[in-house]
Amino acid sequence: MTLHTLLLTATASLGLAAQAYAFEPLTIIDQGSFSAGGTVLSEPGTFDTKNPMSTAGQTFHGDHAYAFYQVPEAPRSLPLVLWHGAFQSGKSWETTADGREGFQTLMLRRHFPVYTIDQPRRGRAGNSTAPAEVSPTNFDQLYFDMFRIGQWPNYFDGVQFDESEATLDEFLRSVTPNTGAFDVDVVSDGVSALVEEIGPSILVTHSQAGGPGWLTAIKNPNVKAVISYEPGSGYVFPEDEMPEPMTGSAGTLEPVAIADEDFAKLTQIPIVVYYGDNIPEEPTEDFGLDNWRTRLAMARLWVDAINDHGGDATLVHLPQIGITGNTHFIFSDTNNAQIADLAAEWIEEKGLGDLAD
Amino acid sequence: MTLHTLLLTATASLGLAAQAYAFEPLTIIDQGSFSAGGTVLSEPGTFDTKNPMSTAGQTFHGDHAYAFYQVPEAPRSLPLVLWHGAFQSGKSWETTADGREGFQTLMLRRHFPVYTIDQPRRGRAGNSTAPAEVSPTNFDQLYFDMFRIGQWPNYFDGVQFDESEATLDEFLRSVTPNTGAFDVDVVSDGVSALVEEIGPSILVTHSQAGGPGWLTAIKNPNVKAVISYEPGSGYVFPEDEMPEPMTGSAGTLEPVAIADEDFAKLTQIPIVVYYGDNIPEEPTEDFGLDNWRTRLAMARLWVDAINDHGGDATLVHLPQIGITGNTHFIFSDTNNAQIADLAAEWIEEKGLGDLAD
Repeated sequence: MTLHTLLLTATASLGLAAQAYAFEPLTIIDQGSFSAGGTVLSEPGTFDTKNPMSTAGQTFHGDHAYAFYQVPEAPRSLPLVLWHGAFQSGKSWETTADGREGFQTLMLRRHFPVYTIDQPRRGRAGNSTAPAEVSPTNFDQLYFDMFRIGQWPNYFDGVQFDESEATLDEFLRSVTPNTGAFDVDVVSDGVSALVEEIGPSILVTHSQAGGPGWLTAIKNPNVKAVISYEPGSGYVFPEDEMPEPMTGSAGTLEPVAIADEDFAKLTQIPIVVYYGDNIPEEPTEDFGLDNWRTRLAMARLWVDAINDHGGDATLVHLPQIGITGNTHFIFSDTNNAQIADLAAEWIEEKGLGDLAD
Repeated sequence: MTLHTLLLTATASLGLAAQAYAFEPLTIIDQGSFSAGGTVLSEPGTFDTKNPMSTAGQTFHGDHAYAFYQVPEAPRSLPLVLWHGAFQSGKSWETTADGREGFQTLMLRRHFPVYTIDQPRRGRAGNSTAPAEVSPTNFDQLYFDMFRIGQWPNYFDGVQFDESEATLDEFLRSVTPNTGAFDVDVVSDGVSALVEEIGPSILVTHSQAGGPGWLTAIKNPNVKAVISYEPGSGYVFPEDEMPEPMTGSAGTLEPVAIADEDFAKLTQIPIVVYYGDNIPEEPTEDFGLDNWRTRLAMARLWVDAINDHGGDATLVHLPQIGITGNTHFIFSDTNNAQIADLAAEWIEEKGLGDLAD
């Protein structure tokens, strides 16, 4: 048995891949990881090498972002920065829960350098200057509903999510907690420092990263475009053009006011926002569904506002272009190769897909 | 400017690489990530899709390990499982703090499939069934001393660690907290589940992972060898052959009693333990140094015990073979390519380095 067969067998025994799948070799011309941004806390006093358990005179490094990057052969000039949502880490973009190639590898195959990050206070970037209590909270069924896999325990008809038990188990193990309070300024500062270091790039955000993604693009001109999968909060509007909050059974969604000159910066770059399937247009008492009804509605107003100010924002509601069954995790759904193609085509249409010299 | 030049420039501007360094292309025949092991908590009651913020009837997945893996072209048959120490994640093994290739990539170049893990309750495997309070603790100078980079603020003469500020900043940002109490059984169960899935493999442990590494090898016969860099605790002995605890200025190091039949399992596989430089042989009041004096001394007794029972354990104290200046992070020190060669040669000597069929 070859090692590769062994791996495939191991994968199959996990139930991770219903169909045996062959990985095509990939030539990588650079890879590695690093931290970016963050702050340093200092305690007064003098460090004593004989009593180092005293924190006097000692420092603490925290609130940085972490990135693992790979550069494929014949790379395009603009890398992608893949930014996970709430309760997630960079694992979101790696192998899918059913064992297929995630966005990280799919986009390498499409010749993009890929930076997969853990935002400050999450995952491998866990050192936080703010304390946190981390407690196990039984929310798996909430996630199942909120991420629109179905309505627990039923999967949506035609959902783009493998319905095996092993897949759901693996999916739920991608959940990982905050190690400090979620703070849009801290996380956007961290990712802004990251794009400062890596240069011009395209931000790809998911869910909770939507709002801080806009802030990062405002903070740093190295963000040349934003692709946002189901942004979930932080819809920013000019102070005097605020829409009404939107209320539903999942609570009230408040738009966020920002300065005109900040909003104007978002009109200088192309932006595309994708939403998946099974989002109702009418109010419903189903929390997980209604949550996305208001968000999709707010996203429509937001895209209109950007375009009214001369910007270039597109909202793609996938069912409207004939792509059905997508969950909240569009980029790891069973049709994620098609989703990756859509993103790559959009980047090319915007003239940002050139190969590096 | 090509993208690769751009990356090198970005790297240089970070001060991550004093010398420009060229990454040689690497062909990867498989890569991805997955979770292994762990448990599920369940709350009694019935889940209500209209009230999902109630945890009634909901579950929680936690205590699993996370692994990112890559398989190089012409792979050897036994992969390496790289297991970080305390306050660390898989980042330990990736790019070094001074921007060079870490053990992950160095070992891919030496044709090993490489699994880089976050142990349960750490990093991307953050979901813990036990709660934790995570607070920023100013311990950077403790780490500097304890990891034998020097005695703060002075670097050891000839230390194998780049002395730039940027390198130390990056190094200190690899620190990440536990998201649940450290538990040797939980972490060794997670890694045992991992090697159960990936098949026969070689465990490479660092520091705090030393002790749970032995337990994993006892639990799972898929562990075919262990390479341990400066194991820091959990020296296991047969119940009736326990050495005296060792006391020093960093506290008391207690050996751990295990059943004879468990100890016997450690005599069935080759084991090599490496310790670096600047470890005193005589007691000292310097906490960070004395900590390693007792650990090196205990490791010597431990290796003797394994061999007295017919095992094959080797302790390599690097200065004794002419390799000087190594810190506690031997595998990411400035001489880590030499360290990687030593490990690969040892694996070959033990007849475990064959290529896959």
